[in-house]
Amino acid sequence: MELESLEKCLEENIPENLLSDVQRILYGRNVPILEIHPDAKILSSHHNFDIQGYRFNAASEQLRAPRIVRVGIIQNKIILPTTARLEAQRDKLHELISHIAEAAFHNGVNILCMQEAWPMPFAFCTREKQPWCEFAERAEDGPTTKFIQQLCRRFNMVIVSPILERDERHSDVLWNTAVVIDNTGRILGKHRKNHIPRVGDFNESTYYSEGNTGHPVFETAFGRIAVNICYGRHHPLNWLMFGLNGAEIVFNPSATVGALSEPLWGIEARNAAIANGYFTCAINRVGTEVFPNEFTSGDGKQAHKEFGHFYGSSYIAAPDGSRTPGLSRTKNGLLVAELDLNLCRQVKDMWGFQMTQRLDLYSYSLSRAAELDFEPQIVR
Amino acid sequence: MELESLEKCLEENIPENLLSDVQRILYGRNVPILEIHPDAKILSSHHNFDIQGYRFNAASEQLRAPRIVRVGIIQNKIILPTTARLEAQRDKLHELISHIAEAAFHNGVNILCMQEAWPMPFAFCTREKQPWCEFAERAEDGPTTKFIQQLCRRFNMVIVSPILERDERHSDVLWNTAVVIDNTGRILGKHRKNHIPRVGDFNESTYYSEGNTGHPVFETAFGRIAVNICYGRHHPLNWLMFGLNGAEIVFNPSATVGALSEPLWGIEARNAAIANGYFTCAINRVGTEVFPNEFTSGDGKQAHKEFGHFYGSSYIAAPDGSRTPGLSRTKNGLLVAELDLNLCRQVKDMWGFQMTQRLDLYSYSLSRAAELDFEPQIVR
Repeated sequence: MELESLEKCLEENIPENLLSDVQRILYGRNVPILEIHPDAKILSSHHNFDIQGYRFNAASEQLRAPRIVRVGIIQNKIILPTTARLEAQRDKLHELISHIAEAAFHNGVNILCMQEAWPMPFAFCTREKQPWCEFAERAEDGPTTKFIQQLCRRFNMVIVSPILERDERHSDVLWNTAVVIDNTGRILGKHRKNHIPRVGDFNESTYYSEGNTGHPVFETAFGRIAVNICYGRHHPLNWLMFGLNGAEIVFNPSATVGALSEPLWGIEARNAAIANGYFTCAINRVGTEVFPNEFTSGDGKQAHKEFGHFYGSSYIAAPDGSRTPGLSRTKNGLLVAELDLNLCRQVKDMWGFQMTQRLDLYSYSLSRAAELDFEPQIVR
Repeated sequence: MELESLEKCLEENIPENLLSDVQRILYGRNVPILEIHPDAKILSSHHNFDIQGYRFNAASEQLRAPRIVRVGIIQNKIILPTTARLEAQRDKLHELISHIAEAAFHNGVNILCMQEAWPMPFAFCTREKQPWCEFAERAEDGPTTKFIQQLCRRFNMVIVSPILERDERHSDVLWNTAVVIDNTGRILGKHRKNHIPRVGDFNESTYYSEGNTGHPVFETAFGRIAVNICYGRHHPLNWLMFGLNGAEIVFNPSATVGALSEPLWGIEARNAAIANGYFTCAINRVGTEVFPNEFTSGDGKQAHKEFGHFYGSSYIAAPDGSRTPGLSRTKNGLLVAELDLNLCRQVKDMWGFQMTQRLDLYSYSLSRAAELDFEPQIVR
C-alpha cells in the first residue's frame, strides 16, 4: 500500500498545538487555500483527478501593482496499456489533458505545464528503440503541439508541453523537449533537456543527447518562465542560469520513482526557488507503467516489466522557501497556485543572495575547473 | 514555548505503521543510532548538553577498504551575560568546549567543528564596534587558536575553529574565519567567509568583507574537509567549488534565528550534499543572546536588546540525501556521526551528477553573465 499523502498524514496525526510549528519548519509560512470553482470540481469528479489550490501572497508596494498570475501543474498516469496502438495511447492522454486543462481554465489558470514526455509512457527503461521512438513528434507542428495550440487559444493559456521531439532538420535525431506555446496558440519556442541521466532504469542517453538550447527564458503575457526538465533539477548550475536569465517561474516536468529519488524530491526544486529568487513547480508522473518485454535495471537483480512507482507529489515552492503541500502520491491531479510575482524581487531585496553572489569569482573558478590541467585548491 | 525537536515530535505522534514511510520521505534511508560511550554520558549530564550519535554506512568494495571517520559538531549557548568582562565570556566558552570535546573524544571523534564565531556572542546585530571588535583574535596564535591546539593534541583530533579574526598583517582588518588545526596541533590553514549577509539583524558587512581565501580543501589524516561559513550555505556556487576542489566533508558553522531562516535550514546544506557528492555538517547556535544597548532591525519595528531564538537543530547530511535528526532546538548539544567516506564516490558513480554537469557550458555562461553588457537569453 502506497502512502497517499505525507502532508495529510501530518495533519491527521500531529496534535493541534504543535501542528503549526511542524508545518512552519517543514514547509515555511502558511500558504492559504484557494477556493476551487464548482465547474472544475465537476470535471475532477467525472474524470477522476484531484484538485488542490493555494495562494502565495506578497507585500503591497507603492510603485508596482501586484503581479498576480495563476499557474497549474498536472500529474497523471498513463491510461491504456503500453501494448495498445500508439495513436490510441496518445489520443487517450490528449483527451485526459483537455479535461484537466478545462478545470484549470475554470480556476483562472494562466500558465499550465504537464509532466515530462507526457503523451507517452516513460519507456526509456526498456532500451528498446521500437516502438517507443515512434512517439517522437516535431516540436513545430506535431500532433501534440497542434492539439496544445487549440487548448491555448480556447483557454487563453500559456502551455508548457514536454514531449519527445523528432528533429527532422538535423538528421532525424531525438530530443527531450519542452514546447512553450503562448496564449494565442503561437509557438514561443522550445527548450531541450540540458542534463541527461544514466541512472538505474533511466536509460535516456540511449535515446537522446544533452540539449543545445542553452537556458532560455520565455517572456509571456503572464510573466517570465523557464523549463528545467527532470534530471536538470539535480544541477544547481542549470537552475542558476535560468535565474540569471531572468526567470520568475521555473517548471520542472519530471518522471521519477520512489526508491530512487523520493527523499530528494522535496529538497531540490525548493532549494532552487530559495537560491534563485523565483517560483519553482516540481511535477512528477504518478502510478506504475508496465512494459511488454522484460528489462534489467543494472543492479544485478532479476529482469522485470515495470520499474516502480512514480510517486506524484507535485508541488510549488516560492522564493521565500515556503511551499504548497504535494499532490497525491497515488492519483492524477491538478495543482493550482496563485502567485504574486512581486515576491521574487521582494525576497531578492530582503535576502540579498544575488547582490552577494560574486559572479566574477565563480566565472574565474569554473573556467579553471573546466580545464584539463585543473589543480584543485588543496591544502596539505 | 519553543518546540524542542521536530523529529521527536514526529516519532511521538505518527502511528507506527506510517512512521517509517514518513521518515523515509522526509529524511532518506534509515541512519542507525550510534551507542554513546558511558564517560561521554557522564560529561553530558555534568555539563548539561545532549549527545546524539548516528552511523552512515556505505557498500563494501573489493579494491578499497572502508574509510571510516567520526565527525562531531557542537552547538551551544553563550554562558555569561554579554555585559561580563570579555575574557571571562571567552574563558567560560573555552571551558565548556573542552568538556564537550572530551565527550567527543570518548566517542572516537576524529574531526570536530564548533559554531560560527564560537568564542563570543553573535554581537553583529548591534552595529557597535566596541567592545565587540575586541573579541577578534589572530588566527595563527590568538588565545583561542592556542587553546584549540592543546585540545587537538590531547584528543588526537582535527578541529575546525570558527572565530572573528584580526588580520594584523593587513592593516588590522577583521575577517570571519575558520581556523583548521590538525590532530598534531599544527595549523593546517584557514578559510574566510566568502559571502557576507546584509539581512535584518545580520549586519556583518559592518565589520568584515567577503573572504579572499578562495575555496580551500584541507587534506587531513581523516579525510578532505572544507568549511562553508554560515551565509555561504545560501550560495550553490560556493558549495560547488568546495566539491570541485575535492571535499568529502563540508562543515557549515552558522548562527541563524527562527523567524528568518528555519524553513530553509533543512533544505540548503542537504541539497549541497546531494548535488556535490559529499557530507555536509550544518551547525547552528542555540538560545537567545541579550545585548546591553538597544538596536533596531531595519524592519520599522521598535528597538530591542535581543534578536530572536537561535534554533540549534544542527544536523549531518550524506551524499545520498539521507540525514540525521537535528540536535535540540533549545539545548546545548554534541552530534557525532560515523561516516564511511567511500559513500561519496559510490553516490557519484550511481547518480552521475558530476559526469553530467557540463562545466564547459557553465564556465562560458557564467563569464558572459558576469559582464556589464550581459544580455540575458530571453525569448519574446
